[in-house]
Amino acid sequence: MIGIGVIGYGYWGPNLVRNFWETDGCEVRWILDQSQARLDTALRQYPAVRATTNFDQVLADPQVQAVAIATPTRTHFPLALRALEAGKHVLVEKPMTSNRDEGRRLVEEAKCRGLILMVDHTFIYTAAVRRVRELIRRGELGDILYYDSTRINLGLFQHDVDVLWDLAVHDLSILFYLVDELPIAVSALGSNHVAGAPANIAYLTLLFDSSTIAHINVNWLAPVKIRRTIVGGSRKMVVYDDLEPSEKIKIYDKGVDVAETPEQVQTLRVSYRDMWAPNLDTVEALRVLAAHFFDCIRNGTQPDTSGVMGYRVVNVLEAARRSMRLKGHAVDIATLEPSDAAG
Amino acid sequence: MIGIGVIGYGYWGPNLVRNFWETDGCEVRWILDQSQARLDTALRQYPAVRATTNFDQVLADPQVQAVAIATPTRTHFPLALRALEAGKHVLVEKPMTSNRDEGRRLVEEAKCRGLILMVDHTFIYTAAVRRVRELIRRGELGDILYYDSTRINLGLFQHDVDVLWDLAVHDLSILFYLVDELPIAVSALGSNHVAGAPANIAYLTLLFDSSTIAHINVNWLAPVKIRRTIVGGSRKMVVYDDLEPSEKIKIYDKGVDVAETPEQVQTLRVSYRDMWAPNLDTVEALRVLAAHFFDCIRNGTQPDTSGVMGYRVVNVLEAARRSMRLKGHAVDIATLEPSDAAG
Amino acid sequence: MIGIGVIGYGYWGPNLVRNFWETDGCEVRWILDQSQARLDTALRQYPAVRATTNFDQVLADPQVQAVAIATPTRTHFPLALRALEAGKHVLVEKPMTSNRDEGRRLVEEAKCRGLILMVDHTFIYTAAVRRVRELIRRGELGDILYYDSTRINLGLFQHDVDVLWDLAVHDLSILFYLVDELPIAVSALGSNHVAGAPANIAYLTLLFDSSTIAHINVNWLAPVKIRRTIVGGSRKMVVYDDLEPSEKIKIYDKGVDVAETPEQVQTLRVSYRDMWAPNLDTVEALRVLAAHFFDCIRNGTQPDTSGVMGYRVVNVLEAARRSMRLKGHAVDIATLEPSDAAG
Amino acid sequence: MIGIGVIGYGYWGPNLVRNFWETDGCEVRWILDQSQARLDTALRQYPAVRATTNFDQVLADPQVQAVAIATPTRTHFPLALRALEAGKHVLVEKPMTSNRDEGRRLVEEAKCRGLILMVDHTFIYTAAVRRVRELIRRGELGDILYYDSTRINLGLFQHDVDVLWDLAVHDLSILFYLVDELPIAVSALGSNHVAGAPANIAYLTLLFDSSTIAHINVNWLAPVKIRRTIVGGSRKMVVYDDLEPSEKIKIYDKGVDVAETPEQVQTLRVSYRDMWAPNLDTVEALRVLAAHFFDCIRNGTQPDTSGVMGYRVVNVLEAARRSMRLKGHAVDIATLEPSDAAG
Repeated sequence: MIGIGVIGYGYWGPNLVRNFWETDGCEVRWILDQSQARLDTALRQYPAVRATTNFDQVLADPQVQAVAIATPTRTHFPLALRALEAGKHVLVEKPMTSNRDEGRRLVEEAKCRGLILMVDHTFIYTAAVRRVRELIRRGELGDILYYDSTRINLGLFQHDVDVLWDLAVHDLSILFYLVDELPIAVSALGSNHVAGAPANIAYLTLLFDSSTIAHINVNWLAPVKIRRTIVGGSRKMVVYDDLEPSEKIKIYDKGVDVAETPEQVQTLRVSYRDMWAPNLDTVEALRVLAAHFFDCIRNGTQPDTSGVMGYRVVNVLEAARRSMRLKGHAVDIATLEPSDAAG
Repeated sequence: MIGIGVIGYGYWGPNLVRNFWETDGCEVRWILDQSQARLDTALRQYPAVRATTNFDQVLADPQVQAVAIATPTRTHFPLALRALEAGKHVLVEKPMTSNRDEGRRLVEEAKCRGLILMVDHTFIYTAAVRRVRELIRRGELGDILYYDSTRINLGLFQHDVDVLWDLAVHDLSILFYLVDELPIAVSALGSNHVAGAPANIAYLTLLFDSSTIAHINVNWLAPVKIRRTIVGGSRKMVVYDDLEPSEKIKIYDKGVDVAETPEQVQTLRVSYRDMWAPNLDTVEALRVLAAHFFDCIRNGTQPDTSGVMGYRVVNVLEAARRSMRLKGHAVDIATLEPSDAAG
Repeated sequence: MIGIGVIGYGYWGPNLVRNFWETDGCEVRWILDQSQARLDTALRQYPAVRATTNFDQVLADPQVQAVAIATPTRTHFPLALRALEAGKHVLVEKPMTSNRDEGRRLVEEAKCRGLILMVDHTFIYTAAVRRVRELIRRGELGDILYYDSTRINLGLFQHDVDVLWDLAVHDLSILFYLVDELPIAVSALGSNHVAGAPANIAYLTLLFDSSTIAHINVNWLAPVKIRRTIVGGSRKMVVYDDLEPSEKIKIYDKGVDVAETPEQVQTLRVSYRDMWAPNLDTVEALRVLAAHFFDCIRNGTQPDTSGVMGYRVVNVLEAARRSMRLKGHAVDIATLEPSDAAG
Repeated sequence: MIGIGVIGYGYWGPNLVRNFWETDGCEVRWILDQSQARLDTALRQYPAVRATTNFDQVLADPQVQAVAIATPTRTHFPLALRALEAGKHVLVEKPMTSNRDEGRRLVEEAKCRGLILMVDHTFIYTAAVRRVRELIRRGELGDILYYDSTRINLGLFQHDVDVLWDLAVHDLSILFYLVDELPIAVSALGSNHVAGAPANIAYLTLLFDSSTIAHINVNWLAPVKIRRTIVGGSRKMVVYDDLEPSEKIKIYDKGVDVAETPEQVQTLRVSYRDMWAPNLDTVEALRVLAAHFFDCIRNGTQPDTSGVMGYRVVNVLEAARRSMRLKGHAVDIATLEPSDAAG
């Protein structure tokens, strides 16, 4: 039985508690929040849980093996670090930290203590994204030529985080999960339509050593909601539409037979073949994530959304912020990975 | 009766001839092509037309007042220039020329001779685009905050022109038609998946002095065809989907009440209101364009897609090409407009 | 404070309890179910509620003013009758009873005792259906020419009820809510693809004295889920798609100007005009229903989904069953309404 | 070289001429119409063709082996009969005749003279419909459980023909092409919203000896255009949407494992599996039809849309008209087929 403390009971915390509750082999021992009203709500629903506003109390409980941190981003680093130092495994909301240096520090601390550091990049635990990865790993898509994602809606403006840190964070985790090659540079441009506020529209492009290219379009000011990602392979292509109720991924068996030499370019054949939409599991992603977290703790294995992935995502977001200031000039993505980046 | 010569009878020429044919007050006198087979096809359908492979013959006909040039892009400049020098009005396919300098030369030649120079940016003559402009001019959208277009499909690779010159050219003309403010810089990135070939995927972002931003996503390697443009205004927003059979433009009366000071940011209200899809005329755009061309000739007025617009489009495309080489670094768009740019 | 007992805690009962719980001015005093396991589940979530397997206990509680019955259809009549006889107001799941005679008996019992009898035809409390009624009442649609509904999906076969009693029941309630004129006859045809089982596909058509016609297509064996209703008026038409996330109703301002005499038929003009999708509230329908039930109890007013509507729905379903046996022959719908049918 | 005369040059005739023109091995020798203006139009486009208003002239030409009749329905019978009596093969527009007796007469005349009698049920020559038939013939769909079609739009009211004869005629031909079992009875209901005019909305249901059921919903008064047919099989199901630009047919590998005995009903498993959309040819159906007509003439084989199919379609339409008068009562479909019905 793995004892867990959930830190933060605002928007996301209740979802974590509910899924932990329904996962075998785990006990939610503590819920921490600074708001007594929220703690009262929590206690009404989960009378057996301990409620507190004091992080030390959670860390002091020897039956707590892990904490799940669902607080504002800027607090992720100090809370996660103290938890790791107290010997607890950590699950932390995305983005993992506010900057790259904090991210590297967490990865190294977890590594040197042999603890699990996992980031709640929830999309990685959806049946749709896992199926696309499976297709790529089996070679069905061929070489990955491009990743193109549109993630737009009419959203609440946030004043402490821009649209990249709010929305592109999802695509970056999906991209790192799907594509093995690491990007080498990022170009970003955006606009804010409120004086002094962070960007509410942004376009981010990732460059690779190969001809692979990745592009992410995020927007809080769109009149329609779109969640559509295209993964173009040399053999097949996938359109992943997260808003489709039953056919979230469609695989197009069509493509261009790429010529080897410039002379052949004119004879490139565009061939339209069939489309196929596999049936997907409908298990809630957070349930899959919870079970995976506990499996990693028990078996000492690295999670699919490890601290290293969390670091890479933050690293790109930080470089994108610089590129935006440079009017889109591509910024190299620091190649110094945390020491266990191989994991 | 305006006599016209159509230069080039390949893919687009027959459409021009058919629409000129059905427009009152005009006579297609000449069809020119280098292929005798194509000329034979033309003659079978239009026995009264003169067929030729000799441009001089067309220009020498005193009853020819105008020529329509539907040949490969690199030939637009010499053909259009000779036609203008021969005192003929010119309609030329998009893009108007291969580069900015040629474009400026044509604009100035037409201006100094008092001739009409018009570019076949066909989309400007669709009921959908004209309706959006009308909404903007009437102030219904408020300030234009962004223009975001996705124009992707599985296309034939072209070896002499990249995807920007093939597809983004449409969006640039629409953008110049809709938005009065001129962009000041362009950032572009792309990728080619065939060694030595031009880019088949590209992302182009235009910056303005105001917080307006424009973004164009073009791709010849997409498994699905998308033609969707969002124009975000401070009061209303438009989604224009050219593939919708009957509801091509949808106007969303929803938006964010933008706060004036940073302090107000948190109280920004996102309000969802109604959607409205006006009924649109279904007249073929090229028919509207043909009538407009002849009206401009008769009345000596500047066309909606004048040589100046054609120049501006080519100017952005040329700057985008430089930006792509600079890995997305924003390139200033030359502010030197042709002398009649006010037109 | 209105005390309420919820009878049946299977699929739907928990939704009723949750919505009553969150509605002011009401107290869920009892939950009744024959399964102790279900009662335990209920008690875990609502410790203050009394759990029982004994209906008499609920009825004997003087603080219980109303019961909500969410048990299998065949038990609705005896339970509702006993509750009315015990002086309790009644909310009962749809269909109200298994046959017309039971329905009439309940309506009369409630009327003579001055009690509220309401049927949980949930769709009537959605913002979409209420908006369509509003449009009709304001005369925006003109005369109602037809109602055409497709309600199909891949469903679990039920062995005690056919697809009409399971799915068409929704459309019948919506139809009675929207259209004032009562149907005079019903024709139904269907098929069962399992020997001895009830129909899993059925088509039901309602005839009126006027030229209005209503048609309902229900199917448990469809590979795709469709919930689309068209209400055709002489002035405007509505398409109501319950699966659309944000634009559930679309109003088409187009129609045919109906000629008055046969001679004019040839000149009928079909005119396409605009489409309009109003923004709709997103309050849960069951919440609206709960508040409406308590308002009716407090004010002694008839609910929008009164026992009379419940009777009319059952009356049509019973006649449809006869028509199906007669191979589609139209069966008159008994004109004898319960005595308070005017309500 | 097969010489052909095209009778009627109104809406459909020009399409026939164009497709014959582009089909090898055939010569359009005559175009007949009562309007000299239409004949002039025809001659302008096809100067080598003979134009006439006199049917005898066409029949007298010994080089005319076949006529294609594209005139109003009521004239099909006399024209086709005279053509057959003159020894010409006949292609006739749908519906083949105005009633069953005329249909039988034509079938018998063609049979006894050894001539081809083919009906222009164009949909049978689309890649989509042919693919569905192929799937059925290969057993991929299993037993056909139902055919359900919605074919609605805002159409021009016609005063001489009702909506069944205008629209359901398509579905009936598709149904006869796809399903081998012949229907035994038809029930139909409809409504006309113009006094004295024929029905503009109708619902037609076909019954079979087996549990197969077919349903067709046609409407000239719908605000949206829908062309969607579901073919439900015991193993797989097909959704055919003729308005989809590229994925017209979708095959759902999901279904219900039908129990053999009533006791098993409760254990029916509904299983959702994959969806698959095959790529389809985009050749114009009329081109395929033209080639098929000439092949049948050359080889003396029966067309896929033979006179017998044409007769069966008219037979159902005539029975449906009676059923509509009987308020939906199912009318037996005359089992007396023309003598060569086996063809």
